Amino acid sequence: MTLRFGLIGTGRIGQVHAANIARSEEASLAWIADPFIEGARRVAETFGGTATADPEELLGSGGIDAVLVASPTPTHVELIARSIELGLPVLCEKPIDLDITRVDALRDAVRSSGVPVALGFNRRFDPGFAGVRARVAAGEIGGLEQLTIISRDPSAPPADYIAVSGGIFRDMTIHDFDMARFFLDDVVEVSATGSAVFDDGAREHGDFDTAVVTLRAASGAIATIINSRHSAVGYDQRLEAFGPLGSLSVANAPTSLISLSTAQAVEAKPPYQDFFLERYAQAYVDELHAFVRLVRGEQSSSPTFEDGRAALLLADAAQRSAVERRTVQVEPAA
Amino acid sequence: MTLRFGLIGTGRIGQVHAANIARSEEASLAWIADPFIEGARRVAETFGGTATADPEELLGSGGIDAVLVASPTPTHVELIARSIELGLPVLCEKPIDLDITRVDALRDAVRSSGVPVALGFNRRFDPGFAGVRARVAAGEIGGLEQLTIISRDPSAPPADYIAVSGGIFRDMTIHDFDMARFFLDDVVEVSATGSAVFDDGAREHGDFDTAVVTLRAASGAIATIINSRHSAVGYDQRLEAFGPLGSLSVANAPTSLISLSTAQAVEAKPPYQDFFLERYAQAYVDELHAFVRLVRGEQSSSPTFEDGRAALLLADAAQRSAVERRTVQVEPAA
Amino acid sequence: MTLRFGLIGTGRIGQVHAANIARSEEASLAWIADPFIEGARRVAETFGGTATADPEELLGSGGIDAVLVASPTPTHVELIARSIELGLPVLCEKPIDLDITRVDALRDAVRSSGVPVALGFNRRFDPGFAGVRARVAAGEIGGLEQLTIISRDPSAPPADYIAVSGGIFRDMTIHDFDMARFFLDDVVEVSATGSAVFDDGAREHGDFDTAVVTLRAASGAIATIINSRHSAVGYDQRLEAFGPLGSLSVANAPTSLISLSTAQAVEAKPPYQDFFLERYAQAYVDELHAFVRLVRGEQSSSPTFEDGRAALLLADAAQRSAVERRTVQVEPAA
Amino acid sequence: MTLRFGLIGTGRIGQVHAANIARSEEASLAWIADPFIEGARRVAETFGGTATADPEELLGSGGIDAVLVASPTPTHVELIARSIELGLPVLCEKPIDLDITRVDALRDAVRSSGVPVALGFNRRFDPGFAGVRARVAAGEIGGLEQLTIISRDPSAPPADYIAVSGGIFRDMTIHDFDMARFFLDDVVEVSATGSAVFDDGAREHGDFDTAVVTLRAASGAIATIINSRHSAVGYDQRLEAFGPLGSLSVANAPTSLISLSTAQAVEAKPPYQDFFLERYAQAYVDELHAFVRLVRGEQSSSPTFEDGRAALLLADAAQRSAVERRTVQVEPAA
Repeated sequence: MTLRFGLIGTGRIGQVHAANIARSEEASLAWIADPFIEGARRVAETFGGTATADPEELLGSGGIDAVLVASPTPTHVELIARSIELGLPVLCEKPIDLDITRVDALRDAVRSSGVPVALGFNRRFDPGFAGVRARVAAGEIGGLEQLTIISRDPSAPPADYIAVSGGIFRDMTIHDFDMARFFLDDVVEVSATGSAVFDDGAREHGDFDTAVVTLRAASGAIATIINSRHSAVGYDQRLEAFGPLGSLSVANAPTSLISLSTAQAVEAKPPYQDFFLERYAQAYVDELHAFVRLVRGEQSSSPTFEDGRAALLLADAAQRSAVERRTVQVEPAA
Repeated sequence: MTLRFGLIGTGRIGQVHAANIARSEEASLAWIADPFIEGARRVAETFGGTATADPEELLGSGGIDAVLVASPTPTHVELIARSIELGLPVLCEKPIDLDITRVDALRDAVRSSGVPVALGFNRRFDPGFAGVRARVAAGEIGGLEQLTIISRDPSAPPADYIAVSGGIFRDMTIHDFDMARFFLDDVVEVSATGSAVFDDGAREHGDFDTAVVTLRAASGAIATIINSRHSAVGYDQRLEAFGPLGSLSVANAPTSLISLSTAQAVEAKPPYQDFFLERYAQAYVDELHAFVRLVRGEQSSSPTFEDGRAALLLADAAQRSAVERRTVQVEPAA
Repeated sequence: MTLRFGLIGTGRIGQVHAANIARSEEASLAWIADPFIEGARRVAETFGGTATADPEELLGSGGIDAVLVASPTPTHVELIARSIELGLPVLCEKPIDLDITRVDALRDAVRSSGVPVALGFNRRFDPGFAGVRARVAAGEIGGLEQLTIISRDPSAPPADYIAVSGGIFRDMTIHDFDMARFFLDDVVEVSATGSAVFDDGAREHGDFDTAVVTLRAASGAIATIINSRHSAVGYDQRLEAFGPLGSLSVANAPTSLISLSTAQAVEAKPPYQDFFLERYAQAYVDELHAFVRLVRGEQSSSPTFEDGRAALLLADAAQRSAVERRTVQVEPAA
Repeated sequence: MTLRFGLIGTGRIGQVHAANIARSEEASLAWIADPFIEGARRVAETFGGTATADPEELLGSGGIDAVLVASPTPTHVELIARSIELGLPVLCEKPIDLDITRVDALRDAVRSSGVPVALGFNRRFDPGFAGVRARVAAGEIGGLEQLTIISRDPSAPPADYIAVSGGIFRDMTIHDFDMARFFLDDVVEVSATGSAVFDDGAREHGDFDTAVVTLRAASGAIATIINSRHSAVGYDQRLEAFGPLGSLSVANAPTSLISLSTAQAVEAKPPYQDFFLERYAQAYVDELHAFVRLVRGEQSSSPTFEDGRAALLLADAAQRSAVERRTVQVEPAA
């Protein structure tokens, strides 16, 4: 039986989910909601389903088995709350919210509801990162001692987005915090350093465009996250897991098998993929599949509400660390 | 308006075409024919269309705009002949036939019909090979002087397939002959060396499992094709174009971005893709698209019946060269 | 005219310098001192010069033009002091001392003497690192925004060495601090995280075997140093300079041009060079040459006493940061 | 006891040998002969030994234990003949001669003399090629089925050199023939294709600037040699050994560990080494060492007079094959 989805939000990431739902043999697109009704209608025409401007109509339709929340961040808490009230499992884009108090206010309801709430940490489903994690778990490099995550977006967002983004740690690094937790679930200390080197928007709003975060785990393992809001070579997404027996690395995804060698330079390749929609195309497909399994009560690797909260706690700690110039202690997730 | 396809043959390559036709916005799958009617029915169920055991029913249905021939090689000439008789454009899997006299017998009919006949030389549509060709044409390495094609299948086919295959040059190298012609359209000499080193089937049927072919163009440029019927690392498909300003290379397609470094070996990656269905997945999509354009009378890069014939002439020349131990002259295609 | 060297200390690094002096056309080995007289004698036999157990005899011999100090760290300050007293230029292995107060006590004497004192930060002369620095300076990647230094020794030193080493930051990271300063001369903040994950010696002596340091420059640029006391793949020495136009990277040095591809793994290479004597063989040669130029009063890139002091200040700050869990401010070198 | 060398010829390759002899602990440079006496004197000043314009004076001096022949090719036969007459072991630069009848005329004398005569096929000592051969012999890829040698010089020699070179196969490919024989000692067939694509000198003298040679071994294994007289990227020297278990490859030697990534191209490296003096620097050292062992009657891997003759036979066969457009049979070396 296919899972009938209600999709809320039809921006670029909503459209990716719509296409993946439509292509999946396990899912179908039943309702699409977006206050910008034109967006909802266009998705409905392309991938099927009923369009509405009102998420409430979607939630109350009786025609859906699960909700995919891809609307703006400030709406997430309310939509998750309503969905679990109605007993509808939710796959919500990250972050849950920029404000930990709002997340915590929702926490008990999620826990007591027993309704599955998954967070859209898509990178966990990337074959590269997931593969390295599985091979680390299989002991290929021994116990994990160091984790290095390089994560650079192609270009800085507009200043008015920066203004409401919650800052680089909550907006961008949040993915890297989750990736660090994917490998190390016992982080106890956060040290962050940030700079506004090139982006006027970051400078204007007291944010950073360049940042490095160090996470220490109870085990003693150390994760390092290196971020920049821009990258001339395309989306820069690398990882190295290091242990006593060696290392496992994930390289940037090539866009071509072609290399050029001349008298000026040899083995030169074209730049990397532009951004996350291309780089993580397969991850979004696998993320959806994992969520379907979660809803069905099968073994699933979907990150949970608690994972979303834990990543936000690390982001908050990093923000505090960068501003107060000190290491911040955190409770490892239960 | 979508092009309604009649698909003849539902083996593994037929299934790839069925899926691509079904997914294309420019095409639809109208009829499927296979004497093994179960195969035709399964494709029809998955991708739509009417199933029949009889290709004639498909051709005469009036419900198709083009024919995709993916049936066994001995049926190709007859099916092309019938299709053009009916004015139906054909995309035919390679080779046209193993016997040049049968190809030549069909040649005039194809030419005089004015009906588009395209050959399934899928590799021309691989983004790597097509990209190198375009960049060579753009002058990035100057005039082409040498072309090196390494092409190794994962494992030798069964002996009874070898028996009817027409030999390695007509069966396997045919793709590489077309690739050489994709870059060099003025080949005038063929020198081939073959061995049966490891495969009993090849030995038994007087065929080769290992071969090297050298093609000399009128321009003086030399292409080298290096073949093996087996490859432990997966499908081995590489190319290097060399000119006065440097070289453009196509590497094997990685199956993962992960590499492992230990005390035994560093930067070790998992083996390459298994075979052509994975390696050339995108090429099959682009091949279909080019054929649709050809049928529509638009600018198209589809290889033609003449390309299929020219590749077979090179294969015949290579077979003669390897057996007679001499360089064989060929007429460059008009 | 060749520069006559007095070499003090004939351990493995002293022997490297002896060989390089002997091979250089600009230098000769005149005196060799080591309390372990057998070591001095062996070097003298191989490379020429007079052996003595007493450095004073070497310094007072009147037969040398410059001193190369390769003796244990606690002797450095005294030997530099004596050398400059005698007007003899010194090339001293890093660090000047583990105690900044002893370094500062020597500082005025060095400055007022006008005698060249160079520090053995060999990595500055590595063609890879020096090349990246020159290309960054030439503007190839725009203004430097991030610098990532990965530096892992092949294996942890014995516990009794750890006991007197001054800790990982003063003993091992000191090279990376200098490398960071080689690129960024305006570091103002240091944040360090350390762990003892695998080495009992480090644990026993309150030291770290695993560390990450973040340095913030006045410009806003951020350097990250990733250290481990062990590395299964061999000496791990990488660097990435990142700017608005792209990045320049230094890879680990291959020990072979051979790669192996099998059904298990493809493109696998042998492990990297074992340690610094191999990895930085050329750097030691170029370091000597630069010192000769410094002594001659020519344009030279030799790191100075002040560079040695500045690196130690960063090491002290890192130690404090790691222990006190806070960012430590430093004065950028004048 | 060190081996006292008489060096005949002080061109660029003679100078390389002089330096290696001078640096070796097993050898010393006793006499240097060159009709261009200035060259001999310069070498004697730098590396020691007595200079003479007359090779006979060197040979008859009584002060040498072995002869290194690095003079022009036409002098080789005579100098080898005189050396063995005098009982002096010879290391002679390739080729023995361009004319097989002159080589054959010398053959019996060499055999009956019992004096060691080694040929300067330097590439056999390259750690990359020698390493692959050893690993093939150790069974890492199973029995050798295919060998691909890519060998391109940086630029074509002057036309007047071409005139006396004996043609590309005897002058340049000779190294590759020996490399093929290093892996496959049972070559029975030669097929060659040549073109003059870019070089007026080659065209003028009926020679080729571009060539491909296929060698078939009695075992059925096939070696392919791909040559060009020019290469924009620097000296292009690659090899791939292929067997049932996989392949072992030798890549071009990088000149730097640095790579540049920008919005135009990523992972771009500087061009390769310019030519053989750099690329095979270590090979020349190891070649000398092997010859010293040969002279001492120890286990040695020095290629012999017979190896020199066998390579020339393959060159002759290739020339015939390319001109007569047919495969040429050869006797495998005894």
